[in-house]
Amino acid sequence: LISRSDALALDADDGLRVFRERFLIDQGLVYLDGNSLGPLGVGVDERLRSVVRDEWGSRLIRGWDEGWLSLPVSVGDRLGSLVGAAPGQVVVADSTTVCFYKLLCAALDLRPDRRVIVTDRNNFPTDRYVVEGVAAARGLEVVWLDGVGVDEVREAMAGSETAVLTLSHVSYRTAAIADMAEINRVAHAAGALALWDVSHSAGVLPVALDSSGTDLAVGCTYKYLNGGPGAPAFMYARHELLPSVRQPIWGWLGRRDPFAMEFGYEPAEGVTALLSGTPPVLSLAAVDEGVRVVAEAGVEAVRAKSVALGEFTIALADEQLSELGFAVASPRDPARRGSHVAVAHADAKALCASLADRAVITDFRTPNLIRLGLSPLVTRFVDVWDGVSALRELAPMGD
Amino acid sequence: LISRSDALALDADDGLRVFRERFLIDQGLVYLDGNSLGPLGVGVDERLRSVVRDEWGSRLIRGWDEGWLSLPVSVGDRLGSLVGAAPGQVVVADSTTVCFYKLLCAALDLRPDRRVIVTDRNNFPTDRYVVEGVAAARGLEVVWLDGVGVDEVREAMAGSETAVLTLSHVSYRTAAIADMAEINRVAHAAGALALWDVSHSAGVLPVALDSSGTDLAVGCTYKYLNGGPGAPAFMYARHELLPSVRQPIWGWLGRRDPFAMEFGYEPAEGVTALLSGTPPVLSLAAVDEGVRVVAEAGVEAVRAKSVALGEFTIALADEQLSELGFAVASPRDPARRGSHVAVAHADAKALCASLADRAVITDFRTPNLIRLGLSPLVTRFVDVWDGVSALRELAPMGD
Repeated sequence: LISRSDALALDADDGLRVFRERFLIDQGLVYLDGNSLGPLGVGVDERLRSVVRDEWGSRLIRGWDEGWLSLPVSVGDRLGSLVGAAPGQVVVADSTTVCFYKLLCAALDLRPDRRVIVTDRNNFPTDRYVVEGVAAARGLEVVWLDGVGVDEVREAMAGSETAVLTLSHVSYRTAAIADMAEINRVAHAAGALALWDVSHSAGVLPVALDSSGTDLAVGCTYKYLNGGPGAPAFMYARHELLPSVRQPIWGWLGRRDPFAMEFGYEPAEGVTALLSGTPPVLSLAAVDEGVRVVAEAGVEAVRAKSVALGEFTIALADEQLSELGFAVASPRDPARRGSHVAVAHADAKALCASLADRAVITDFRTPNLIRLGLSPLVTRFVDVWDGVSALRELAPMGD
Repeated sequence: LISRSDALALDADDGLRVFRERFLIDQGLVYLDGNSLGPLGVGVDERLRSVVRDEWGSRLIRGWDEGWLSLPVSVGDRLGSLVGAAPGQVVVADSTTVCFYKLLCAALDLRPDRRVIVTDRNNFPTDRYVVEGVAAARGLEVVWLDGVGVDEVREAMAGSETAVLTLSHVSYRTAAIADMAEINRVAHAAGALALWDVSHSAGVLPVALDSSGTDLAVGCTYKYLNGGPGAPAFMYARHELLPSVRQPIWGWLGRRDPFAMEFGYEPAEGVTALLSGTPPVLSLAAVDEGVRVVAEAGVEAVRAKSVALGEFTIALADEQLSELGFAVASPRDPARRGSHVAVAHADAKALCASLADRAVITDFRTPNLIRLGLSPLVTRFVDVWDGVSALRELAPMGD
């Protein structure tokens, strides 16, 4: 049996263990929900105080010329290095929902003669709702996949009128990883563009936006990038597409020479044209610091620990939970699994609440999933051990 | 002649002078640009530290159920009280640009048989660009007014196919106030909807959204509401319209019961349906504090001081600047003027930079305007005196 001492031994051996000190985590809290909201970094806390006091407080409007205006692109480039994007293709802005809307519209405008959007019935809700809304507004058809396997995708696209295929790289429910590169090939063979949501992979596993042939992507910064609650999102548009991509929300910050305030919109050069409104400076600074810490650790090292934590979680679940009505709902092959482990149980919702009462924070996803989120920079093996043990203690003893 | 002592006497008499202590303003800085970026409030600084450390840092994901989720509406209601909106009609979200896009599309969808958008050639750039983009996407015509007088508006609307009339309440250039109530009547008589941008009036002069018959409005929170650089914006939709308003970016936070994550989008009840993505918690908290301070002072008192500062500015400009090639470009009638005074000068751009070198912060607007922004909670009469005097010293002595 795997003991708590085994978990502590793994922690002692963990090359990333020093990174936990870079975050402010309450003692006594077992936090297994960094996939929903990453914790507060010490550097983020300091940077925010500096931006508020020294930049906003002292420099005031001058801040715009002293770095604020370039934050969407400078933070975007830094973030791009974590998701396999060469500079000049990523901006940080808006919310994931708004970013997704902008790029979905942009993609559809690049395939004006096609009438179909293909996506996954289990895609993240906001992506599904945006797809529905845009399809309704434009009179397009949505084809809903029942899975994201390459064969299913190929079948749905065959001979199709698909303009855009859009999927999540990692499922928010099961953490299953979609085969981005192969699916991109399928999409392109069918003449469609591929738009990915990398919210559940950015910062925690290698994402090869450039080399996978991805056309467009969006992602969230408040999960594994630890940018803070409701932090702005990011958009990626591959270099070759940038000259022809036109997003629908023509705002001043996406215009060439915005402060000339001239008559008539002309998009800015390159990725800046994806911007619309005034950049959210405080939030961008927080994202910047969150990204820097992941970059310092290195995505490969983060991924290695993520896999180790995931294997440990599944081994513990098999040992401690399988007889109590729980089933592992995430892929068992670590190569196919992102950084959380979902366990299914009929009483998942109540169990999740009971765990929280014991200061074990996970989250519930309908109808029956408890997600155990593994944030390699802060999650310890002993956190997993304590969390799974608490779940075992709380679980009803079977029918 | 108006002396510096006169200015100091006015400050000593100012009933709002204690509010300046609620802001962190560097000694020695003459800040006349609160119309672009409001200063840092002491309460904002403290609230941000608390939200970062105590809420994000300690409560982590639990924060969403402990107040974060309701921030767009709760801060919206508080802000609504400053712009004449009864509760349930305002949300704080996104950027001004994105909010404007959402409400412009929503308004057009309410007038599907009409093909014209009417706006002002001198409207704020981002509004103009959004209008252009939406018109291009939908194949609509834009009628560009050369001014916002009621007669001009009436003429443009006469017998027209206007779906939406959209204007700024206060001109970002001259601070001229448009006659919102009368223009709304003209719009409605023509069967059009009225969408207002109140960025330059919210928090600094009475805005009567409800009683003026305004249909839809957006505004900025980082000017006179002191919400911080790039703070989220706000949207207003009048109660009677809410059941039929449908904005185009269907995101999870605008859906009924978002965390059910169900299949199929159904808009939430009321003003919540204007939301799209995850609320930016840190920024919303800052806006909340900014709004509270204005509410505490009271918009009427703020307006009274704004008018007094404006009259003082114009009197000084007449006395000190009129012989040096400057002309007041803002309305002289205080009832027609918002809270900045624009002065025109051929060398405006260079003068603005020279002022900044002397720690007098104003801003330049092409081709020849210097805007002197008057933020009644922090701007002193002596700041105006020092600013105008610096301008006089820097001005070339004529040709």
